[in-house]
Amino acid sequence: MRDTLFELKCSKCNREFNLVVKKWRCDCGSVLNLKISEYPVVENFSDLIDKNQRNLWRYESLLPFKNGITLGEGLTPVVKKKVENKNIFFKLEYFSPTGSFKDRGAAMGVSRAKAIRVKTMVEDSSGNAGLAYSAYASAGGIRARIYIPFDAPIGKKALMRACNAEVVECKTREEASERAVSELGDDDIYVGHTWDPFFLEGMKTEIFEIFEEKIVVDSVIIPTSSGSHLLGIYRGFEDLIQMGFFDDFPEFYVVQAGGITPIYNRIHRKWDGGIGDLADGLRIVNPPRIEQIVEVIEKTNGDVLVVDNEEIIAAMKELYRMGLLVEPTSAAAYAGLKKIKGVKSPLIPLTGTGIKTVDKIQKIF
Amino acid sequence: MRDTLFELKCSKCNREFNLVVKKWRCDCGSVLNLKISEYPVVENFSDLIDKNQRNLWRYESLLPFKNGITLGEGLTPVVKKKVENKNIFFKLEYFSPTGSFKDRGAAMGVSRAKAIRVKTMVEDSSGNAGLAYSAYASAGGIRARIYIPFDAPIGKKALMRACNAEVVECKTREEASERAVSELGDDDIYVGHTWDPFFLEGMKTEIFEIFEEKIVVDSVIIPTSSGSHLLGIYRGFEDLIQMGFFDDFPEFYVVQAGGITPIYNRIHRKWDGGIGDLADGLRIVNPPRIEQIVEVIEKTNGDVLVVDNEEIIAAMKELYRMGLLVEPTSAAAYAGLKKIKGVKSPLIPLTGTGIKTVDKIQKIF
Repeated sequence: MRDTLFELKCSKCNREFNLVVKKWRCDCGSVLNLKISEYPVVENFSDLIDKNQRNLWRYESLLPFKNGITLGEGLTPVVKKKVENKNIFFKLEYFSPTGSFKDRGAAMGVSRAKAIRVKTMVEDSSGNAGLAYSAYASAGGIRARIYIPFDAPIGKKALMRACNAEVVECKTREEASERAVSELGDDDIYVGHTWDPFFLEGMKTEIFEIFEEKIVVDSVIIPTSSGSHLLGIYRGFEDLIQMGFFDDFPEFYVVQAGGITPIYNRIHRKWDGGIGDLADGLRIVNPPRIEQIVEVIEKTNGDVLVVDNEEIIAAMKELYRMGLLVEPTSAAAYAGLKKIKGVKSPLIPLTGTGIKTVDKIQKIF
Repeated sequence: MRDTLFELKCSKCNREFNLVVKKWRCDCGSVLNLKISEYPVVENFSDLIDKNQRNLWRYESLLPFKNGITLGEGLTPVVKKKVENKNIFFKLEYFSPTGSFKDRGAAMGVSRAKAIRVKTMVEDSSGNAGLAYSAYASAGGIRARIYIPFDAPIGKKALMRACNAEVVECKTREEASERAVSELGDDDIYVGHTWDPFFLEGMKTEIFEIFEEKIVVDSVIIPTSSGSHLLGIYRGFEDLIQMGFFDDFPEFYVVQAGGITPIYNRIHRKWDGGIGDLADGLRIVNPPRIEQIVEVIEKTNGDVLVVDNEEIIAAMKELYRMGLLVEPTSAAAYAGLKKIKGVKSPLIPLTGTGIKTVDKIQKIF
């Protein structure tokens, strides 16, 4: 088996970069894309798996870095539930080092930062990503500076500080994004997950696990803010299709929370329904990769839906009755399912643990 | 392969009971023990594993119930760290449905309650076990009534209620134990994990996983309150030894928190050092299975150690720097390691997530 070759390229002007470049976007201002330019040739997917690694690095033959940092991320369980004639595959992404799916991306992002030997990495986050990067940075011996909105859940902030991160509280999620890059020092690297293509390579392992478990789904329903989870999952299917293991993509359904609905506004019309601010993870007003998100939805015959707090609460209650202790952002996806017709076997990643958002849980129940 | 046969027996008067009995202790007042009386005969341990089940039910050929409830418990990752010439195997038991090792025992305890068709199950807990039982009971369609001390972490209480449990707040941990059984109705079943032998059968799967991963340890270091984790782990090794896969037990080291040290007091002398009340999971003054705990320590040439808050905080800080986000109770085991001489490759289960105890984390860091 020969080495997998990667290509780091501007999404707009096609300029190419070396994998160890410190840039977070192209000189033209556009997002960078990372793709496999030459796949390994194997008969079976299982030939690509290092089964001794019981974490996402078992798929390192398809990842841009090897020997990465691990805190036990990946290999999350799938719980199957039959609800109203649908076979739902809940992928429990909150079984993870810091309690959210962001750990997969952070494992990759921080392993890259380590590979290019930076001392300080900078991230902006509504909470979960900041905590994931804080933990991995600490484990990897790298300093982390995290910009977050001041009203991020208390638990998430306390844990970031416990992992030794410098936490910078901002007035809004947008201010956090802006300051993270405007205050970047010469020796720092910006690993913002809304921009970073390496983050998506971490995320794609979620789909490799689904495939390794021989689970077949007809759709993916996913709460979407920056789209890093959605695009990572897409990258996973893309790799499998490119290698000939799959014929086509499932339908991708994006769920946004009323109040901040840039993707819905783009595809349909300006959302004028109820507010969904309980989903504190869905706060990005200008997703840098919005073009790609729209493309995925259209290409896979999916759609974008919006849910409000009432629907999120109803979904939370149903999930807790099933013993699935999620945060409101994760419940948004299950709330979205109720509005989708035709899907029979959806994959719903449950993105983060409700244990981190106890203040909200107390209000809801 | 023939079916595995189990034997439910009083630890004192040897009276035998049927596996589907509703009793939580013998009529003589002593704890019941559950053991395998006839093991399946196989060449390799892997012949006993149902590899399609990616949760603890993969070992159901060695468990007292089959087709149990699953919320994705088990198959927790192991993170290896070399610290001061020791190869430490941290088993991340907080990768679990409700964030603690108790989910393994609750999966078994609630599956048993379902098998004997009870409507309400009753548990007493300092927090983690109550939450685990609440989630599984809800998933299994069984009502849960949980007795806890009023000062259990807020997060744990809120989540129990979110899972639809009836939470009864008591003045102390002891009052919780007493009321749980004195207020037991005719149709209720008491599944208290400090007494229940089925809980231990769930816990033993942790060691089956270690063995399946071919990890060899010379010792186990474990924070101990009722001893349900310790005795469950012991059961796991016992099964493996009985089937001829192992020769001998590793050394069992018990870590208690200053202030509540019944096991230390029994083996050494009355503890007169500092208080360790940050470890809110270590609060049991009269462990029903203390005789068995002492026997395990003595039989395996282990010991019992006590740590105080200062040592717990130092251990917490070290663990968070490694990216391991544990609760203070889990950190107690790592604090204990510093006081043990001679062990080279200890297994340290990290029992619960720090995400549930944010109020404490804020004070510590």
